[in-house]
Amino acid sequence: MSSMLFKLITIVDEHFTQKDNMYVGVTDNRIDYVGAEYKAGYEREYDGVRKCLIPGFVNAHAHSPMALLRGYAENMALSDWLFKKIFPFESTLTEEDVYYSMLLSFAEMISFGCVSTTDMYYMGDAMASAVLESGVKSNISLSATVGNAEALKKEYEEMFEKYKDANGRLKIEVSVHAPYTSTPEIVRDFSEIAVKYGCNLHIHLSETLQENIDCKAKYGCTPTEYFEKNGAFRVPTTAAHCVYLEDGDIEILKQYNVTVATCPTSNLKLASGVCDVQKLLDSGVNVAIGTDSVASNNNLDMFGEMKLFALLPKGIQKDPTLVTPAQCLYAATRAGALSQGRADCGAIVVGNRADLAVVDLDKPHLTPVHDVLNTLVYSAIGSDVALTMADGKILYENGEFYTIDVEKVKHYARKRIKKA
Amino acid sequence: MSSMLFKLITIVDEHFTQKDNMYVGVTDNRIDYVGAEYKAGYEREYDGVRKCLIPGFVNAHAHSPMALLRGYAENMALSDWLFKKIFPFESTLTEEDVYYSMLLSFAEMISFGCVSTTDMYYMGDAMASAVLESGVKSNISLSATVGNAEALKKEYEEMFEKYKDANGRLKIEVSVHAPYTSTPEIVRDFSEIAVKYGCNLHIHLSETLQENIDCKAKYGCTPTEYFEKNGAFRVPTTAAHCVYLEDGDIEILKQYNVTVATCPTSNLKLASGVCDVQKLLDSGVNVAIGTDSVASNNNLDMFGEMKLFALLPKGIQKDPTLVTPAQCLYAATRAGALSQGRADCGAIVVGNRADLAVVDLDKPHLTPVHDVLNTLVYSAIGSDVALTMADGKILYENGEFYTIDVEKVKHYARKRIKKA
Repeated sequence: MSSMLFKLITIVDEHFTQKDNMYVGVTDNRIDYVGAEYKAGYEREYDGVRKCLIPGFVNAHAHSPMALLRGYAENMALSDWLFKKIFPFESTLTEEDVYYSMLLSFAEMISFGCVSTTDMYYMGDAMASAVLESGVKSNISLSATVGNAEALKKEYEEMFEKYKDANGRLKIEVSVHAPYTSTPEIVRDFSEIAVKYGCNLHIHLSETLQENIDCKAKYGCTPTEYFEKNGAFRVPTTAAHCVYLEDGDIEILKQYNVTVATCPTSNLKLASGVCDVQKLLDSGVNVAIGTDSVASNNNLDMFGEMKLFALLPKGIQKDPTLVTPAQCLYAATRAGALSQGRADCGAIVVGNRADLAVVDLDKPHLTPVHDVLNTLVYSAIGSDVALTMADGKILYENGEFYTIDVEKVKHYARKRIKKA
Repeated sequence: MSSMLFKLITIVDEHFTQKDNMYVGVTDNRIDYVGAEYKAGYEREYDGVRKCLIPGFVNAHAHSPMALLRGYAENMALSDWLFKKIFPFESTLTEEDVYYSMLLSFAEMISFGCVSTTDMYYMGDAMASAVLESGVKSNISLSATVGNAEALKKEYEEMFEKYKDANGRLKIEVSVHAPYTSTPEIVRDFSEIAVKYGCNLHIHLSETLQENIDCKAKYGCTPTEYFEKNGAFRVPTTAAHCVYLEDGDIEILKQYNVTVATCPTSNLKLASGVCDVQKLLDSGVNVAIGTDSVASNNNLDMFGEMKLFALLPKGIQKDPTLVTPAQCLYAATRAGALSQGRADCGAIVVGNRADLAVVDLDKPHLTPVHDVLNTLVYSAIGSDVALTMADGKILYENGEFYTIDVEKVKHYARKRIKKA
């Protein structure tokens, strides 16, 4: 059993407000003390002066196995990008590639304060191995499409059996890729699988206007209605993107408590548009933040994502009061943890899992601090993270990676793309 | 005379394309060698493996003396933000505050690879001292408004006299704040001053829709026409923001070779809107990039600004092919240098000033590199800068500041805001 006390540190507390000069104790995998007084008895004491302790970020929509495609294809029309570059490259990926790419993504994420991902891809065993080794939390899913549905049904059965006793950091989810790559039968079948195993569902939803137009033409309903009427939302669902929701869609998402994982960078970069997150927040929908893959971002820095989450509604809707720093931090942490079914994560409160990141405020670009939430959302960048901890275990501190052989992983990636 | 050879380094060359395994020599303040072969005789040799050498960034629209207002007021309507928070705080600023704030901003900028700013504020001596001490380049101007025009005329005369023999890193410019804070007479008078001293002009232009509406109502013309017909563009001019240009405006800017310094983060954050940079680029206007102040950003990271410069046109105009990485890097470096009247800066070419930044690519979030321009624009963040050099002098390397006492400057800022 290990234990650690963060001393005299500024924290973003469970109400997402700033508290200065606090003490936060961690024993084994839980937070067991939050208070204004020193408490003795911890193995390690951490000097928190000019540092800020936040809940570790939850990346609510990721494709971590795509790390090798970072910056591979840029400034191309979507169809060329997909069919001439992304799909051909992806068709060459092996289990080993997926495993190392996942580790590379996780290395980046933990160096930037992220502790957990909701991750959709293929080759579940390779993904699971990377999760279990890295110390990161991840809800992983395999993405059902017209092309792979039958094979995936079998793979899912094996996955649920194989990982049913796995460390709780790893959770298996079911994924249906999108309306335009599925059939109603696929949605029904995979929703049944999710119900059967009591797991979450992860989907792409209304990412582009064309998706909505095509769905209406083919099925006479919006993508949200398509999923709903085929039984998808009976299990907790994370819906990525949601750029083109109609009013009725928002009511459905709210009714079923579907989480919207907005991906502001990716939606701009692929020219999809801008998700109206203020409207979703006002409607009471759980809004989390995702990076999408590095092929359309091209990094996994949740600070950058938070800043864009805060800026876009202001600039697009011409109202500087929209989306507060507290709403940004909540979306990047607690909202994502809730979407993953991890109710004891994503907030600094006694009894919760010790999923934490320390931000070093002692830098020119973070000086002075008038209000630490403003500083975190508008001024900080990924590299300001000094320490990242998941389930009480330090994964990263001051440039050192404790669970990932980062030199080996970078070497693999460099060597691999030379053969691409 | 000092000299240095960057060895086996990837560079962004004068055509803003990638060249690998290059050698770049610097002697005294100039680049004196760029080639694929090793060249002997330099005092220091720098290992460039897994590093990239770029022209140092030019921040084409800054208010560096506002560092103390970083994160001071957020999510407020513009009038409340200005009149209840920003202006009252600014009215308390002393010469000492301006000096230390400028140094704090410069510390941040050089740690993020920026070598030069076009900087508009007040208290020119304090600004000039910070420029001369820090080793940074800056075109500084004092911002003429209805309230200060007469006093500024006198101050400008003294400034031009006092700094006429200053190190070329410091240039004095004239500034007229904006149409809504000036009169035609002020524009005429200060344009005359600029013509008299042969210096540049720096203005805010069409930042908000309301500015355009009010200008038309009051003067019967657009803000661009207002400046043009009062003689502003006879000298090289940098016009910040330009969110609401009309077609005729673009022709005027092109005709006079006015530089547009777009500030994408600030324009979103203050709910002004989005500058159509693709249209300006297509029209042949010189487009540079600025951060604006940290009161509306809230950092001075030109990587973040480049990424937004690249992303917004794609997402807003629904075309992923808009604004290439080369256009981003050019706008963030060479275009700014040209706007400053520094034709021998902002590009890696023999004979140019040695204004350079080294980006360390050996990080998880920058691995792998398929195309270094994609990596720089879409994946890199400010802290990836390992070394920043202006006029051949190293200002920053691996966390060390060689010209600024950064601990003293941060301490000043922290102490000062406690009294605010």
